[in-house]
Amino acid sequence: MSLVRNLPPPPYWAVIFTSKLDPPVPADYAAMADAMDDLAKTQPGYLGHESLRDAAGTGITISYWRDEASILGWKRDLDHQAAMASGRDKWYRRYHIRVAEVSRAYDFNRT
Amino acid sequence: MSLVRNLPPPPYWAVIFTSKLDPPVPADYAAMADAMDDLAKTQPGYLGHESLRDAAGTGITISYWRDEASILGWKRDLDHQAAMASGRDKWYRRYHIRVAEVSRAYDFNRT
Repeated sequence: MSLVRNLPPPPYWAVIFTSKLDPPVPADYAAMADAMDDLAKTQPGYLGHESLRDAAGTGITISYWRDEASILGWKRDLDHQAAMASGRDKWYRRYHIRVAEVSRAYDFNRT
Repeated sequence: MSLVRNLPPPPYWAVIFTSKLDPPVPADYAAMADAMDDLAKTQPGYLGHESLRDAAGTGITISYWRDEASILGWKRDLDHQAAMASGRDKWYRRYHIRVAEVSRAYDFNRT
């Protein structure tokens, strides 16, 4: 995974999505996740996302958005809604979604 | 890693810390990270944290805080400042810190 950099100066918004599924990650889950990654990138206001999942099936995905309206648009996307419903039915044991406004950011790059 | 749950209702705050270091993770880095985990838990306003790092050395750590003042207190902690300075000197190739106010949260638990 690559870190998201070159975001605009704050304020911008973040959606922190943490989840637990039973390993190993099912192939159809991975396909859905890839499709949602591709779809998110087409959404107005999408700035980038980062995602990691450990061998125990615990994952963190953070997506960054220009404003709160962009997040609501993504939430309402019908394909996204269907994917989330499948996730609840088939894959996720638990998840948490936290919507947050980023007010300050600091970057370090080794020179 | 365990997911943080049972947070209070929003608003609360999150610090999104993403970083890249050169794998394998050095033993002295892991010791520092463990010490900082323990220290953070003693800070006023600390609510929990989640952390994952992949084999390529890319990591996401999210810590949750009662309010912005708690985050400033943790930022000013001298042992934490020393650890961050060591990180810049020795370990991190790059990092990003994003301070955000969580305004909405949704939880799903399979019944």
